[in-house]
Amino acid sequence: MNQTGSTLSLEQAQPAQTASHAALIALDWGTTSLRAYLFDAHGAVLDTRASTAGIMNLPRPAAEGGFDAAFDAVVGAWLDQTPDLPVIAAGMVGSAQGWKEAPYVNAPASADALVAGIVRVQTARGVPLNIVPGVLQNGDLPNVMRGEETQIFGALACAQASATSKGMLIGLPGTHAKWVMVREAKIERFDTFMTGEVFAALSEHTILGRTMITPDHPDTAAFLRGVQVARDQGKAGVLATIFSTRTLGLTGQLAREQQPDYLSGLLIGHELSGLEAALAQQQSTLAGNALQLIGNEALCERYRLALAQFGCHQADLVKQATERGLWRIAAQAGLVSEVSDAAQAS
Amino acid sequence: MNQTGSTLSLEQAQPAQTASHAALIALDWGTTSLRAYLFDAHGAVLDTRASTAGIMNLPRPAAEGGFDAAFDAVVGAWLDQTPDLPVIAAGMVGSAQGWKEAPYVNAPASADALVAGIVRVQTARGVPLNIVPGVLQNGDLPNVMRGEETQIFGALACAQASATSKGMLIGLPGTHAKWVMVREAKIERFDTFMTGEVFAALSEHTILGRTMITPDHPDTAAFLRGVQVARDQGKAGVLATIFSTRTLGLTGQLAREQQPDYLSGLLIGHELSGLEAALAQQQSTLAGNALQLIGNEALCERYRLALAQFGCHQADLVKQATERGLWRIAAQAGLVSEVSDAAQAS
Repeated sequence: MNQTGSTLSLEQAQPAQTASHAALIALDWGTTSLRAYLFDAHGAVLDTRASTAGIMNLPRPAAEGGFDAAFDAVVGAWLDQTPDLPVIAAGMVGSAQGWKEAPYVNAPASADALVAGIVRVQTARGVPLNIVPGVLQNGDLPNVMRGEETQIFGALACAQASATSKGMLIGLPGTHAKWVMVREAKIERFDTFMTGEVFAALSEHTILGRTMITPDHPDTAAFLRGVQVARDQGKAGVLATIFSTRTLGLTGQLAREQQPDYLSGLLIGHELSGLEAALAQQQSTLAGNALQLIGNEALCERYRLALAQFGCHQADLVKQATERGLWRIAAQAGLVSEVSDAAQAS
Repeated sequence: MNQTGSTLSLEQAQPAQTASHAALIALDWGTTSLRAYLFDAHGAVLDTRASTAGIMNLPRPAAEGGFDAAFDAVVGAWLDQTPDLPVIAAGMVGSAQGWKEAPYVNAPASADALVAGIVRVQTARGVPLNIVPGVLQNGDLPNVMRGEETQIFGALACAQASATSKGMLIGLPGTHAKWVMVREAKIERFDTFMTGEVFAALSEHTILGRTMITPDHPDTAAFLRGVQVARDQGKAGVLATIFSTRTLGLTGQLAREQQPDYLSGLLIGHELSGLEAALAQQQSTLAGNALQLIGNEALCERYRLALAQFGCHQADLVKQATERGLWRIAAQAGLVSEVSDAAQAS
């Protein structure tokens, strides 16, 4: 197992002090990675650990104790020091392919509903693991999330109560980008755009990749050009516009090094056009919303640039949404006695 | 080289007679295949040959005579019998990666313009090869075709002159589907949809493929369900709707065996929605057009089913468009003395 280790070297140098303050272990356990946070009783992060032991990448098969092995490797040392720490986890660890399935909670979903849906699994070392469920929006085109619901309640923990009562749009860019409408402290509805995964599939497995060269630095002009084409000339849809990545190259209008960022701009531009069309059905617009973004900082910055092309100039990056969300749900579930700010607000 | 051999066994059994009547050799030379037709002086096909020696799959590198080797293997026997036969070719053989580049002719493009753009390359056996150029529609979102222009003039060879003066929409489903507006015997404008290649990339290289099982027989109901979702609930765009292939499975509403046809329906439905939107900008609609389809018969039948969902009930399959087009252009170029029906009509 490839551990990237602690990011807080100060606490590592003072293990005795860390252990005496520890109040909660929280896990963000996804498909390809496992991140662990050690909290004190005030919700401050004392230490972090990261491993590549996502649920599809366990050190040994699940049937041979793979989950326990991954769990021990990442948080065993913390539990050795403080054996009775409560442990909470969110993400794909609660899926049908995870350690134990935590059935989806239906949207609209509150933090209370998530707490009520927590499923417990007994670890080999005796500590119970509390798994937060995902959220399902059922219907003709169902949508699901696992992990993002926790980040969203983390973002709400630091949002104004007034903003959430009016309705707030939260974007989570990535492999499967989510756009979530939150109202009155509930996940009301959401869409999933496979933008990140489609970009990878097009770049690596279609003719578009054959003429592309990855540039040393992102080409913002090429990216914005793609966004604008999707916004202004994208009527025929993304299946048509993506071919211009190749034909602009063939006609000498787009260098090979510009093609990856142009294609990325096209896809994100079509995502935002699609989101705009979905919002219109709810009598809303991107420009009329104050947005929050959760995710990789560089990717969120690209989305901010693209959103500005759609007239949306207020899109704040929420930091530590995962940690805040795990803490908040643990507090609301009574796993820690500290009452969080978020719990007070709701 | 893997030759699938002749499809006209009658002529194969009578080589002497075949040779005495032969008037033209025509090649459809693409990226992954090479098909050859032997015509008599009346434009009837006497014999055909096929090989996998597309320009990206030559028996040896181009610099080491790969094109000549592929050419000889497929049509050498015909030329041995009738050494002075004229030879014409269309497709990627005229691209920058082909035997010799035949620069694109600009749209709107007539058959005369294609003839004027023919480029000749001398083969090792001394026979000149006449290469038909492709068509470029330049602009902010350029479009290109190589090979389809020849099929289109083949379709026009059997269309009513009245239909082409009014404007006719021709669809060429496939890896890179083309939709071409023809008016007054010219290729006026066209769009390219990467539908076939995107389907393959999504099925083979994204999470959507993980739950799919290819059924023994195509599932028409699942296909039409996908078309209808794209048409009626596709506002958010294809990046969003494709995720329902997975979520309908997760929620027990779509069996694994139904997922490939559902995804295919979604993509073709989005293609037709995009085409509809592009037509609207030209004050036209799918329902208001009599269409012609060129391509694989089973795939064209899927498109006919999908088109009916968009109110378009007249979409005729054009057969032998490639052969007819090669013959027509050769006749118009004076490579054969016979005057074709198409040349008379134009």
